[in-house]
Amino acid sequence: MKYLGCAYYPEYWGVERLKADAKLMKEAGINIVRVGEFAWCRMEPEEGRFTLDWLHETARVMARRGIDLLMCTPTATPPAWLTNAYGDTLLVRANGERARHGSRRHYCPSSDTYRRHCERIVDQLSREMAAHKNVVAWQLDNELGPEMSRCCCENCQARFQAWLRSKYGSLAELNRSWGTGFWSMDYSDWSQVRLSDDTLNFYPSRILDSKRFFSEMMIDFARQQTAVLRRNHPQALVVTNGMGPIYGPIDYYRLFSELDVACDDLYFDIATMDANVAAMNVFRSIKPGKRYWITETGSGALDHNKPPHKDQFRAWAWSGLAHGADAHLIFRWRTCLSGQEQELQGILEHSGEPRHRYQAVKECFLELTKWRKDLADLPLPEAPVAIVQDYNVLWGYESSCVGSAVRYPELIYRLHRELYRRHVVADIIAPDRDLSGYRLVILPSLVMIGDDFAARLIRAVKSGTTVLAVGQTGMRDFNGNYLAEPGPQHLADLLGVKLHGGMYLDSHVGPEEALMFPKHMDSSLSVSLAGELGGASIRGSALVWIGDLELNDGRVLLEFTGDTYRGQPAMVENQTGKGRAVYAAAASLDDELFGGLIDYSLALSEIESGPVTPLHVEVVERGPVTFVVNHTAEAVKVRLNKKGRALIGSYANGCADLPPFGVCVVR
Amino acid sequence: MKYLGCAYYPEYWGVERLKADAKLMKEAGINIVRVGEFAWCRMEPEEGRFTLDWLHETARVMARRGIDLLMCTPTATPPAWLTNAYGDTLLVRANGERARHGSRRHYCPSSDTYRRHCERIVDQLSREMAAHKNVVAWQLDNELGPEMSRCCCENCQARFQAWLRSKYGSLAELNRSWGTGFWSMDYSDWSQVRLSDDTLNFYPSRILDSKRFFSEMMIDFARQQTAVLRRNHPQALVVTNGMGPIYGPIDYYRLFSELDVACDDLYFDIATMDANVAAMNVFRSIKPGKRYWITETGSGALDHNKPPHKDQFRAWAWSGLAHGADAHLIFRWRTCLSGQEQELQGILEHSGEPRHRYQAVKECFLELTKWRKDLADLPLPEAPVAIVQDYNVLWGYESSCVGSAVRYPELIYRLHRELYRRHVVADIIAPDRDLSGYRLVILPSLVMIGDDFAARLIRAVKSGTTVLAVGQTGMRDFNGNYLAEPGPQHLADLLGVKLHGGMYLDSHVGPEEALMFPKHMDSSLSVSLAGELGGASIRGSALVWIGDLELNDGRVLLEFTGDTYRGQPAMVENQTGKGRAVYAAAASLDDELFGGLIDYSLALSEIESGPVTPLHVEVVERGPVTFVVNHTAEAVKVRLNKKGRALIGSYANGCADLPPFGVCVVR
Amino acid sequence: MKYLGCAYYPEYWGVERLKADAKLMKEAGINIVRVGEFAWCRMEPEEGRFTLDWLHETARVMARRGIDLLMCTPTATPPAWLTNAYGDTLLVRANGERARHGSRRHYCPSSDTYRRHCERIVDQLSREMAAHKNVVAWQLDNELGPEMSRCCCENCQARFQAWLRSKYGSLAELNRSWGTGFWSMDYSDWSQVRLSDDTLNFYPSRILDSKRFFSEMMIDFARQQTAVLRRNHPQALVVTNGMGPIYGPIDYYRLFSELDVACDDLYFDIATMDANVAAMNVFRSIKPGKRYWITETGSGALDHNKPPHKDQFRAWAWSGLAHGADAHLIFRWRTCLSGQEQELQGILEHSGEPRHRYQAVKECFLELTKWRKDLADLPLPEAPVAIVQDYNVLWGYESSCVGSAVRYPELIYRLHRELYRRHVVADIIAPDRDLSGYRLVILPSLVMIGDDFAARLIRAVKSGTTVLAVGQTGMRDFNGNYLAEPGPQHLADLLGVKLHGGMYLDSHVGPEEALMFPKHMDSSLSVSLAGELGGASIRGSALVWIGDLELNDGRVLLEFTGDTYRGQPAMVENQTGKGRAVYAAAASLDDELFGGLIDYSLALSEIESGPVTPLHVEVVERGPVTFVVNHTAEAVKVRLNKKGRALIGSYANGCADLPPFGVCVVR
Repeated sequence: MKYLGCAYYPEYWGVERLKADAKLMKEAGINIVRVGEFAWCRMEPEEGRFTLDWLHETARVMARRGIDLLMCTPTATPPAWLTNAYGDTLLVRANGERARHGSRRHYCPSSDTYRRHCERIVDQLSREMAAHKNVVAWQLDNELGPEMSRCCCENCQARFQAWLRSKYGSLAELNRSWGTGFWSMDYSDWSQVRLSDDTLNFYPSRILDSKRFFSEMMIDFARQQTAVLRRNHPQALVVTNGMGPIYGPIDYYRLFSELDVACDDLYFDIATMDANVAAMNVFRSIKPGKRYWITETGSGALDHNKPPHKDQFRAWAWSGLAHGADAHLIFRWRTCLSGQEQELQGILEHSGEPRHRYQAVKECFLELTKWRKDLADLPLPEAPVAIVQDYNVLWGYESSCVGSAVRYPELIYRLHRELYRRHVVADIIAPDRDLSGYRLVILPSLVMIGDDFAARLIRAVKSGTTVLAVGQTGMRDFNGNYLAEPGPQHLADLLGVKLHGGMYLDSHVGPEEALMFPKHMDSSLSVSLAGELGGASIRGSALVWIGDLELNDGRVLLEFTGDTYRGQPAMVENQTGKGRAVYAAAASLDDELFGGLIDYSLALSEIESGPVTPLHVEVVERGPVTFVVNHTAEAVKVRLNKKGRALIGSYANGCADLPPFGVCVVR
Repeated sequence: MKYLGCAYYPEYWGVERLKADAKLMKEAGINIVRVGEFAWCRMEPEEGRFTLDWLHETARVMARRGIDLLMCTPTATPPAWLTNAYGDTLLVRANGERARHGSRRHYCPSSDTYRRHCERIVDQLSREMAAHKNVVAWQLDNELGPEMSRCCCENCQARFQAWLRSKYGSLAELNRSWGTGFWSMDYSDWSQVRLSDDTLNFYPSRILDSKRFFSEMMIDFARQQTAVLRRNHPQALVVTNGMGPIYGPIDYYRLFSELDVACDDLYFDIATMDANVAAMNVFRSIKPGKRYWITETGSGALDHNKPPHKDQFRAWAWSGLAHGADAHLIFRWRTCLSGQEQELQGILEHSGEPRHRYQAVKECFLELTKWRKDLADLPLPEAPVAIVQDYNVLWGYESSCVGSAVRYPELIYRLHRELYRRHVVADIIAPDRDLSGYRLVILPSLVMIGDDFAARLIRAVKSGTTVLAVGQTGMRDFNGNYLAEPGPQHLADLLGVKLHGGMYLDSHVGPEEALMFPKHMDSSLSVSLAGELGGASIRGSALVWIGDLELNDGRVLLEFTGDTYRGQPAMVENQTGKGRAVYAAAASLDDELFGGLIDYSLALSEIESGPVTPLHVEVVERGPVTFVVNHTAEAVKVRLNKKGRALIGSYANGCADLPPFGVCVVR
Repeated sequence: MKYLGCAYYPEYWGVERLKADAKLMKEAGINIVRVGEFAWCRMEPEEGRFTLDWLHETARVMARRGIDLLMCTPTATPPAWLTNAYGDTLLVRANGERARHGSRRHYCPSSDTYRRHCERIVDQLSREMAAHKNVVAWQLDNELGPEMSRCCCENCQARFQAWLRSKYGSLAELNRSWGTGFWSMDYSDWSQVRLSDDTLNFYPSRILDSKRFFSEMMIDFARQQTAVLRRNHPQALVVTNGMGPIYGPIDYYRLFSELDVACDDLYFDIATMDANVAAMNVFRSIKPGKRYWITETGSGALDHNKPPHKDQFRAWAWSGLAHGADAHLIFRWRTCLSGQEQELQGILEHSGEPRHRYQAVKECFLELTKWRKDLADLPLPEAPVAIVQDYNVLWGYESSCVGSAVRYPELIYRLHRELYRRHVVADIIAPDRDLSGYRLVILPSLVMIGDDFAARLIRAVKSGTTVLAVGQTGMRDFNGNYLAEPGPQHLADLLGVKLHGGMYLDSHVGPEEALMFPKHMDSSLSVSLAGELGGASIRGSALVWIGDLELNDGRVLLEFTGDTYRGQPAMVENQTGKGRAVYAAAASLDDELFGGLIDYSLALSEIESGPVTPLHVEVVERGPVTFVVNHTAEAVKVRLNKKGRALIGSYANGCADLPPFGVCVVR
């Protein structure tokens, strides 16, 4: 791992602490600090007056300890003097209220005024800080997104209308594309078309384009700063810190395509470990072949959650390394005394003293430093599987009245979990990514299928790739509207079926029968299915949604055995060229069927699962090195199929022996 | 059943589909289509320019297939050009925000501007469409009501003040009627009296009058269109589509008194079957002696609920017929590709193909068509029981701080359910309806008793009718305020008691005793009661609310055996002339007591229950014909007390034999 | 008990009822009525026209029956004519909406216009009513506080800015004190600093000062009326009615310091009895050595809760007396017919008839009257224990992002409950109160420690007092910010430890492991601890938060046996002079540990517990008299350590014998 570091706020603690802090950092193995992302009011306390001395001093003191800087632009937090003087820099909520000073991310990303001020501070900052050799990278803003709300100001409305005009050309085309013929929705003037601002006005196409517009505004906002930084400091990397496994509001595939490294703020303790691994798989996939950075993670509590034990903290760091991280930055050096995040624990206590968390970080970082050279040139983990995730689909579901019923992200995570527990690495990719090299391509509820993607997918299958499609597939266009012909669009031949529609399986009336009319319950039903997978009989339940399938080519694996679709295909398989496609016409399955389906698909793809382990014990290979990480509180033995010796931990007779939260690295 | 049909949107699908659709409709037994209710922007794309060709074409194509039209006024969805040009046509929410284009029912019903535009489009439309013989009826607007919110604009405020002035004459009288002496509520100027707009300002009388005002605005809005239609197209029926078993916001008894048929949008799958039957009983009761129409029901999913199996769909249709429906219209012909209801399944798929739902509709409709003539002249089911439901009471409870605790609609449904499971038909009527002909009149928590109603009720009892009063009875005036004397107002002699008040049975402190002050729980207590009903000892629990009764005449059936009212009457019976009155001074009872109370009341009324069946198996008689409908997923045998033969299903030796969701019609 | 009474609304019922009501009151033992607190519109129906005849008549009629008056200022409910004419008297909600007429407490407490009107009515009222000898006391307004919302109008903003300016002197000092260096929060102009108005802008110091400002506004508002009353009617007491055990929005210790009696509106049925006793302990502690008044309590339902049985009602009244109440006023004489509280039961029914509640009140009040003389001069219960409660700490926790996780009030009530169940009386006091006389002083999570308080506490310990500190202690400054050195501030020597920080024990990932990322659960973990308390081994669990302790002096009682702090002290004891300090570094414990800790602390303090009884059976001593009150529905025997005879109830052989809800008074 190249970078071990933390976020640092000299503007808060004062330059007097610089030397003592740098010394403690150095001793803990820290070689990079992230600086400046919320410091605007201390960089420019009044318009045009810049006070960057403390930053120069920080760079110098750090340089003396051999510590690099990830410099940040401070645009997430405009100063009070700015937003007070220029009200149009503040975002306006859906209800018309303008935000006020007092939090962060309260700016309007489309405001020309705000962009002008951002450009000025970024220009000044980068011109000055480029002089320091240890400024190796720039971070744009902080966690770009609609933290306080998406802006609905009149400036955004006008930009949205211009954006629509440029996208659709004419209102007639917009009306046609959005399908405005029901409920008298036709627009007769561009000014009538406004950003979706009301949960009651849930017009799918309008919400979908509003989401696209917001994402583009943010990317455009980032682009402007990137241009300044590349001009003033061409030798530095330009990055920004993302979130999530799948972050909804911004198309990260597009955002990071203009930046140098995919970075994730990944707090390991706010999700289960399979979701954390999904996050690392996403960020490793965003920029193919490149290592990602973990730009924020916690050594302590995010708020009132229990901080990790030091062994757990260490296990997370090794998992990060195993999956391809090249930086591991702790948020933050010292716990702030005041402000909204005064409970978010840094490495040091409020008092500035090093205690348990400092010890945990230090031991972990020194160990990682010790092995840095030996593990420097490992290839990234090889992913034989790609899971296709499309922002159009995500936003489409979010824009639809019943979209949440589909549970799109959950289905992705559910499928990913089956691979995770089998130690099979998956890329999570946008549909425009190259599909070659994958043995298995999974399409979870990919309800919109572009023709280009379809063509590339079919080509891949012809040359031997396996496809597994699950749930709603090729039923909508890219305006979020249903197709006027049966699905799966572009893939009917590949999957060998016609998809006539389907049915959701929620019920307004519960099994216990709510007595009273206004208190009806929502409950989920299931439909039975049965058949054969890989030679073995299997039966189980489909959940959430099932498809109304008609078989063309290929063969039925399982069929529905109950309700309206009784006797119709439920899972089918079809051959095209050297490859096969499996389609499960259900948006969810019971656990046994999910497992069987993944086992069968892996077998078709000739992908071997890793050793059998308890859930949340990881086995990851990077070239000659195998990482075994135990995220559970129980000791565990893991039998590997390799000869080798333990660099770290205990490995003998092909068996790694791990204590609770233990790590074993075998070469 | 005279009409079998569906909603149809040629403005959405284009006239090109007309002929193909009409052919498929005809083949499926459809003889009416509902057209136009959301099509304003395609009828009048700009102010004063009318484009009704597609409608004429629709009428002509349908005529050729022998299909009638239920034409709609499109006023539920004003076009964007209209609301943008005339802002005062849009409703204003309680918080002052004006609604925007993008949904439906976002107009202000009191707006003169909006009414003027409505009058113009209705006038043009009806003048043109009256020329088509197959336009047999008109539907006003769509599901009139406060779908987006009740309007609180200044125009509505002024109208409300004028309405109050005309109702009360003077502020002194308003202050007296509303009882404004507590909390310094006196009004000294009409402008101070505004529509209730704030949950914190829950002044009972003000909320109650605000609800009355809204209902009257809506009825007035409907009346204006009715006048135009009757003038331009006198030979057509004028209707509108209602909702619910008991729809809260508009007094349907008054609304439908000015219209020709009571119509209900009744989606059978969003409530239990007894609530659906309650709905049919309500709509059959609204216009005495007339059949009702089911103007909307689903053959598929309303959103993400599981669509019915075709046998279940058929059972619902036969139940509709059994209860007196004369029309059964499916919402909608084809599933829209776009818009807010893109998930709401029509008869055809998104693709326009006929699949499972088309088959289900076709089989059902052809069967109904086959039997149309034989079952055409059946009398309506006879209801020996009336359940009295008063909008004043409903709105009164909704306006009171603890009104929801009474669970007024639930009590009505609860009592109805006991009749439903005994196959005893009940009318659900307003108190101003003629009471003669009912053997049993039930008053569920009728907390306001008008003098005229009381007089008619007493007269009915004198001539032999039984009365069953349950819960709070005659305790409030029609301003929603409590009476300054003991209840039950006007009925003390009839029920033979004085009602001094009572107590609710909720508790702020749970049985487990919440430890901490701010986390107290709400939990419901019960009070025991015991006595004799029809010769048998019975004991059980009263729930929700119990009354503080003092006996005058008559006799005690059960008395309270616990708490403060121990030893006081809980259920009493009194004789007046030839009839008797039973009063249960509890707003809810345990199941056994509810059952016993209804059995006892039916016995007093000499009403015989139908055969014993599992719940949700219906037995309904219409003259010589008995309908048996099984709404359960289990096969069932039902023994009938009649000779006859099965028109449909299997009937032998007095026993109907029904498969799951089966139907048996015996003459 | 000196006063037995009720709230009475002659302005609502009319003077015609006066005589009949007074007669019934007299017969029920009532000797005081509270009058006028919502009657403004009937006192001054238009500006400057006063109509107080009905009040004079009320005073005269009551005087004739020997009934005193607690007169109220009517300022909780400005008339419609006032708020309509002077819009700036209405409060403005955080979202900018101005309140409207229709509820109560909708005024802006900082409005000069409103204060001017208040001064006028209070002046007129007190000048006139001072003439009546039976007007013995004045109540200011009613339940002062932010019932509808804290006002955020521009006038309040300006006052807040002026208040800050006077508090901090300069913006530089405000920025320093609030710690604005993170997230670019520096203020550069006073106008930028606004009242906290947005849950997203949760800046701790700003919220804390906003809370302080609101409390001061309210106290200032009260002060203005007090001045008028003291001038016009010097011989009358001036009071106001408070709420809660610990009422959050106003510093009652400061408010009541300017008034004559501490009064609580204490509805016994909305909390468990230990919380009610906590309330009485708070109000008895507010004005040391003085009896408190219960200015409102219910004889019936507050809304839809079940009213108490008369024995329960009596038990509450005797508990009030036992704890030092000198007045017991029922809210309200008769149940109002109309208005927001039409369900809140008075003593009489809506009809004005006396029924069960009248009987309950009458029996109870006549009994209390009978014993009035005998029990008149009892000393107050002696409290050997003080629980220190600080509004700065309460508001600090409320202002912090994770403050609610600490559960500050719950911890106070939890510790109080252990004393309550042992019949040990505790004062609940502000830190500026005299500590002498207490044998045990408990600091529940006293996260802010002032130097003066610390000095007095240390002095007390030196002379033999025991201190028990629990949870977060001395970690924050009075701006709500963490200290830049280890805690416990000012108490490190006393407690013999350094407190380096700590950890919360919530978990984002549940024990069952939520499958999906967005659905992570919050669940609470525990950490084990073990050791010895008073010679006995004990082990158990710490919850919510644990401290990172380093021992200096003293000795470890228990240590953590799990997780990161394994082996560190969890509970410590230290001696200073004649006294000892015990510190439990956990914000919550399991029940056994809480019990053990209190037992141990009482033993150190040489305080004896009362007899062992079931929970919610009270034993309270006032001088020679012992009150035993059974709040449970089971009969119970209680063995007392005293000779004596029962004034009330049954006492023989040292054993009090109580039926359900029974009372026994032994002298």
